[in-house]
Amino acid sequence: MASANKCVVYVEPGKVSVETIEYPKLELPEQHRKCNHGVILRIVATNICGSDQHMVRGRTTAPKGQTLGHEITGEVIEAGRDVEFIKVGDLVSVPFNIACGRCRMCKTGNTGVCLNVNPARPGAAYGYVDMGGWVGGQANYVMVPYADWNLLKFPDKDQAMEKILDLTMLSDIFPTGYHGAFTAGVTTGSTVYVAGAGPVGLACAASCQLLGASVVIVGDMNKERLQQAKSFGCETIDLTASGDLPDQIAQILGEPVVDAAIDCVGFEAKGHGQGASEAPATVLNDVMSITRVAGKVGIPGLYVTGDPGGIDENAKVGQLGVKMGLGWAKSLSFTTGQTPVMRYHRQLMMAILNNKIHIGKAVNATVIPLEEAPKGYQDFDKGAAKKFVINPNGLIKQTTPQ
Amino acid sequence: MASANKCVVYVEPGKVSVETIEYPKLELPEQHRKCNHGVILRIVATNICGSDQHMVRGRTTAPKGQTLGHEITGEVIEAGRDVEFIKVGDLVSVPFNIACGRCRMCKTGNTGVCLNVNPARPGAAYGYVDMGGWVGGQANYVMVPYADWNLLKFPDKDQAMEKILDLTMLSDIFPTGYHGAFTAGVTTGSTVYVAGAGPVGLACAASCQLLGASVVIVGDMNKERLQQAKSFGCETIDLTASGDLPDQIAQILGEPVVDAAIDCVGFEAKGHGQGASEAPATVLNDVMSITRVAGKVGIPGLYVTGDPGGIDENAKVGQLGVKMGLGWAKSLSFTTGQTPVMRYHRQLMMAILNNKIHIGKAVNATVIPLEEAPKGYQDFDKGAAKKFVINPNGLIKQTTPQ
Amino acid sequence: MASANKCVVYVEPGKVSVETIEYPKLELPEQHRKCNHGVILRIVATNICGSDQHMVRGRTTAPKGQTLGHEITGEVIEAGRDVEFIKVGDLVSVPFNIACGRCRMCKTGNTGVCLNVNPARPGAAYGYVDMGGWVGGQANYVMVPYADWNLLKFPDKDQAMEKILDLTMLSDIFPTGYHGAFTAGVTTGSTVYVAGAGPVGLACAASCQLLGASVVIVGDMNKERLQQAKSFGCETIDLTASGDLPDQIAQILGEPVVDAAIDCVGFEAKGHGQGASEAPATVLNDVMSITRVAGKVGIPGLYVTGDPGGIDENAKVGQLGVKMGLGWAKSLSFTTGQTPVMRYHRQLMMAILNNKIHIGKAVNATVIPLEEAPKGYQDFDKGAAKKFVINPNGLIKQTTPQ
Amino acid sequence: MASANKCVVYVEPGKVSVETIEYPKLELPEQHRKCNHGVILRIVATNICGSDQHMVRGRTTAPKGQTLGHEITGEVIEAGRDVEFIKVGDLVSVPFNIACGRCRMCKTGNTGVCLNVNPARPGAAYGYVDMGGWVGGQANYVMVPYADWNLLKFPDKDQAMEKILDLTMLSDIFPTGYHGAFTAGVTTGSTVYVAGAGPVGLACAASCQLLGASVVIVGDMNKERLQQAKSFGCETIDLTASGDLPDQIAQILGEPVVDAAIDCVGFEAKGHGQGASEAPATVLNDVMSITRVAGKVGIPGLYVTGDPGGIDENAKVGQLGVKMGLGWAKSLSFTTGQTPVMRYHRQLMMAILNNKIHIGKAVNATVIPLEEAPKGYQDFDKGAAKKFVINPNGLIKQTTPQ
Repeated sequence: MASANKCVVYVEPGKVSVETIEYPKLELPEQHRKCNHGVILRIVATNICGSDQHMVRGRTTAPKGQTLGHEITGEVIEAGRDVEFIKVGDLVSVPFNIACGRCRMCKTGNTGVCLNVNPARPGAAYGYVDMGGWVGGQANYVMVPYADWNLLKFPDKDQAMEKILDLTMLSDIFPTGYHGAFTAGVTTGSTVYVAGAGPVGLACAASCQLLGASVVIVGDMNKERLQQAKSFGCETIDLTASGDLPDQIAQILGEPVVDAAIDCVGFEAKGHGQGASEAPATVLNDVMSITRVAGKVGIPGLYVTGDPGGIDENAKVGQLGVKMGLGWAKSLSFTTGQTPVMRYHRQLMMAILNNKIHIGKAVNATVIPLEEAPKGYQDFDKGAAKKFVINPNGLIKQTTPQ
Repeated sequence: MASANKCVVYVEPGKVSVETIEYPKLELPEQHRKCNHGVILRIVATNICGSDQHMVRGRTTAPKGQTLGHEITGEVIEAGRDVEFIKVGDLVSVPFNIACGRCRMCKTGNTGVCLNVNPARPGAAYGYVDMGGWVGGQANYVMVPYADWNLLKFPDKDQAMEKILDLTMLSDIFPTGYHGAFTAGVTTGSTVYVAGAGPVGLACAASCQLLGASVVIVGDMNKERLQQAKSFGCETIDLTASGDLPDQIAQILGEPVVDAAIDCVGFEAKGHGQGASEAPATVLNDVMSITRVAGKVGIPGLYVTGDPGGIDENAKVGQLGVKMGLGWAKSLSFTTGQTPVMRYHRQLMMAILNNKIHIGKAVNATVIPLEEAPKGYQDFDKGAAKKFVINPNGLIKQTTPQ
Repeated sequence: MASANKCVVYVEPGKVSVETIEYPKLELPEQHRKCNHGVILRIVATNICGSDQHMVRGRTTAPKGQTLGHEITGEVIEAGRDVEFIKVGDLVSVPFNIACGRCRMCKTGNTGVCLNVNPARPGAAYGYVDMGGWVGGQANYVMVPYADWNLLKFPDKDQAMEKILDLTMLSDIFPTGYHGAFTAGVTTGSTVYVAGAGPVGLACAASCQLLGASVVIVGDMNKERLQQAKSFGCETIDLTASGDLPDQIAQILGEPVVDAAIDCVGFEAKGHGQGASEAPATVLNDVMSITRVAGKVGIPGLYVTGDPGGIDENAKVGQLGVKMGLGWAKSLSFTTGQTPVMRYHRQLMMAILNNKIHIGKAVNATVIPLEEAPKGYQDFDKGAAKKFVINPNGLIKQTTPQ
Repeated sequence: MASANKCVVYVEPGKVSVETIEYPKLELPEQHRKCNHGVILRIVATNICGSDQHMVRGRTTAPKGQTLGHEITGEVIEAGRDVEFIKVGDLVSVPFNIACGRCRMCKTGNTGVCLNVNPARPGAAYGYVDMGGWVGGQANYVMVPYADWNLLKFPDKDQAMEKILDLTMLSDIFPTGYHGAFTAGVTTGSTVYVAGAGPVGLACAASCQLLGASVVIVGDMNKERLQQAKSFGCETIDLTASGDLPDQIAQILGEPVVDAAIDCVGFEAKGHGQGASEAPATVLNDVMSITRVAGKVGIPGLYVTGDPGGIDENAKVGQLGVKMGLGWAKSLSFTTGQTPVMRYHRQLMMAILNNKIHIGKAVNATVIPLEEAPKGYQDFDKGAAKKFVINPNGLIKQTTPQ
């Protein structure tokens, strides 16, 4: 069973490569504890994520050799002796957050901050610096612990393979975008502003539509990505154009505010206008300015506690100039943090399988072989309006979502 | 009916005086619109509030002559022709937020940001700069608009007068403290940290107990106020002592985190340790550091969009150095803004009338005549562990809560 | 201004007629109290409702001469002196529940059981027996009290007239169907069973889609109405066919349960199978049998406290044989009662105006002149798969929804 | 390790005895599946429950030899190989519902209807007919499966043993009473009616106080139990007295309604007045009559799908004459079902350990040795105002709660 296992690893700022790593074992990494509650997956689809780019751009403390990949869908090929309900042969979606299913946080649905999977702090993920040391899944095979708890089994494998370019988004960006929309209170009839048209922003915009929003406006500086947002019915705002955001909103809605706003950008935000430089609180402050009084702001975009490449000493420790007075005067609420994927993935799977959403199309899922992952990272970093889906074992037959 | 009407007014930084103002009319101030939905109250109790102090310290743009007072309890002595359910003779509590009862925000319970009572922006209050120009109620008489909507009638006047030093807290600080606790998710068994032992902090701590918290910890630098918190069963942390906050929490709870935290201080926060200087984001960043992952932070403490006395250019426009990275890594949520008093005042009244809480004692309600209001402002500013209740018409007979 | 005013009135079981009634005044009916908070509407659209049929079938104590009509959309032609924000010329939707906007129930969003508009018991409606004596609105003109509170103004009159056959559903059945779905917990990905394919059932099914349901199944015995449900993407179950409901559900979903179920039938339910006779708890017990454990059941279908035509003594006082043991064993929850329309109508209007739903088509809105109302009642009673929209003043130009 | 294990077993209607049963193994009962996720407990406290009485009275299909006991607190003496976080020596509370921690219901907090622990239907319990065949815990030892998921560990064993007569209520009646109150919407200031002053009713009343209720009224026909309710501050209504319930409520509150009501009786309800006979829907219909419009009714009292002793054919299959019309006219909501203990037990433990509630006193916890269990069953059935706590291994030293 110990086949060759290749994986994308971080080499140095701007560079990743595909290297052979150890075939996974049913053990906790580094701690060498047995992991009989885990399974080994043959990976069917594994996507490149914007948060991987933070590492690859050198904006984290990720070491050389860090394995990458936390958006994983695969087939169970081996199950630990304590796995009871997941079976060999099951086709499953893996939430990017690793969770034990036995702690206080897991019992209350907060799987993004599980207490038992990362000795350093609550919360873990596959293939990510400071997230527990779990091996990444932009690979042929990966080990998933606490399999009965973590995995979402697709009810029918053939049906699932037909929709695999949609279902692969269940491991991270679709729930993440949905969480942003949901925690911002998006519901029937809402007007919404989504900051950022990268894959999470697009997934968020599509989620807003699924939640019944009446108008979804997406803002970005990348024309190609804005075009992608338009392709499924969003209004768009080009942030390189002149004019301030409230005016741009008003041109669309007739009023300078929206019911709900979501920050899908995070700490690598740039200021407005052509050639704007990095300004880490820009998006936060922007969305406050255009959210209706008593509104909610969802913040799935990543903010970090340590950013070696931060623009100043405060930014380097994650302390940003936030317009608290404005937010308070408007009685706004804010939700931050990693999305607890398990809270949403089953219902989003149902929406996909019953054709209520075409998330693969919305984010422009684009299949590449594992060897082309380094080029995928580069293209994505340059702003390609694509969500790269790595096909490590050649199991995906289609090239675009149906 | 046009009796003499005296009111506390702002004179200059550090100074208020009691002056004769016009007897109230059923009109909207300045706009001279008729206000047939309003009533005139003979004021029974009207309290000095910490947020009044922001004006009096010169930390706002309040002009000379600004009338003061937004914590009002009184008896209806005249009712406009459109008032249908409130009657002359009713003894009522007035929410400090003025609300129309007819706009989208009022219909959804967000009376703190009513759209129709302040031409400048959503939300209004009596006797406060930039809050709609409504006349203050540290006075003999005051006009309350939209009386059927705004007023809470006490079911029995005699019973109410016996508990007037508790009931007077319903106009602001009791709901405000409760809102902070409620939005922080305080519930049965919670461990809680309340930042600030001023009247709002104490009301919040008492509210936490009412909500079933298992341990309530109050932090402040004022020993007298901490003693007041101890008097009704809170644990306390003296922030002038050495040691960092997580350690101080751990000494009490055995772990360095609480389930919920509330910022009852706001933008005039000081840093830690003896003689610490102003540091407006200190409390916010503190409470993030000691809130459990996936926890909520309630922020009833006031943050402003303009602070002429701010410590730097950013602080002057309400932009503060907030540890976003830390909050995000912990998946925290935040609720800000003026408390919509109407959401809570009826149920809190029931708790008072049935002896489930002694809020007057908790905040050390202290009765003073109207003429002594200037001294009350001074004593309060110096840190007296008292909540001053002005007795403008001599109707309160007791001097301390029963 | 006192134009002729014709209105549909109840004559005797099975019979209504169009009669001239008094032109409305700004007064409370019968009590002759002034109603300066009210407006007079020229009615644009007013629909026949299934609950009207209960009266017309003689299943209530409605007296001869009872005016009918509680689904009203119109233009303001006169406003009382205390109306402040609604203006003459506004085109507005009228919630069928009359509410004061000043009582405890209104303040908490429970406008369906307002305490001040019906001397007999909480809750009122236009043109309905025992609902406060308010004059019905299947007429040329009608008076609406507490206009600032009750009315939903359409933002643009021309745009509204283009969508008037959708917007007219905001006064009752669209919010009612949505309330059923919402209180049953329908959300992204839900599988749902809707009992009844009358207008409320169809509106509920469309609402389930708007809420993101993955599969919506509608059950009825009327093939034409089931066809209507199919026309907008629902699955259907013909209850006259053999086979029990769980099996029929399983044929569609692969399991005999749904996530959520809604009873859009109420007390005039019939048993299953061809020629089934009335069995008032059938639908309730059915939906319990096919709702997943821990699920919720929405019950917008009407159950009454007095039914002169009930099948037995218990049914005549609204006491029905409910399978409590089954519901309890499954840990189900139930929500009953009149829909508080105001809780939903604004957001549903936004969904209509932005083409997120075509509710007029879903319920097969069919325009008729006022004189043809009696025939409309008859056709509807026979089971026509139509929602009759009366056009009393000839202001609607289209005949079917766009 | 295989010590003697005695257990209370059902013999025939009206009779239980203490018999020696097999020492527990880490296996699923009957199915003989290995249960490596389980632990063996030495039982410290195990209570007699009202729902046990349904079996003992012959009101279920429980067979001769059915082991009894689902309210279990104990010390871990052996742990299966898949148990990771619970350790030998831990003192733990066992939720009466057995749950796998891996199914859709467990993941959403609905542990009362776990899908994997009872082949017959969702939901399981120890020592109960039709609840999965798990061995009862009114014994010396018991096996608890899925230990990491199910068990609540007390933080300090000595502290816990001091409060053991409070903590033993965490396995069932305290969460059950609290669930009733919580799902009825009891909160700060609520007025509440609790039907039934048995242990669950008393636990519910105490929970209402913990949730901040302003007035808690308990109704029963048993004077001794009513006296017990009075002992901790409840108002009481003697249902054997003349007068109808709304009047009796009005005498206490000044109005004939409460904000929230809880049915803590269930299907063995009796009618009102002295010598009233069984009338299974009485309590349900009563609580509807006195709940305020738009209120909620919590129904922790047990209703069953099969009752061999039911008063008529309908009652025997759990179909009861419910006043649906009344409930609907009042817009009431209802929550039924087994309490998912895990949703509440940790926070209630915190309340106990920090002296916020004295639940053992409230329900009159009374310690008896295992051999006296048969007498305990008899006394409880006769209406003793006591909650019997069996002390099977002599580990409890106190005889009454501290």
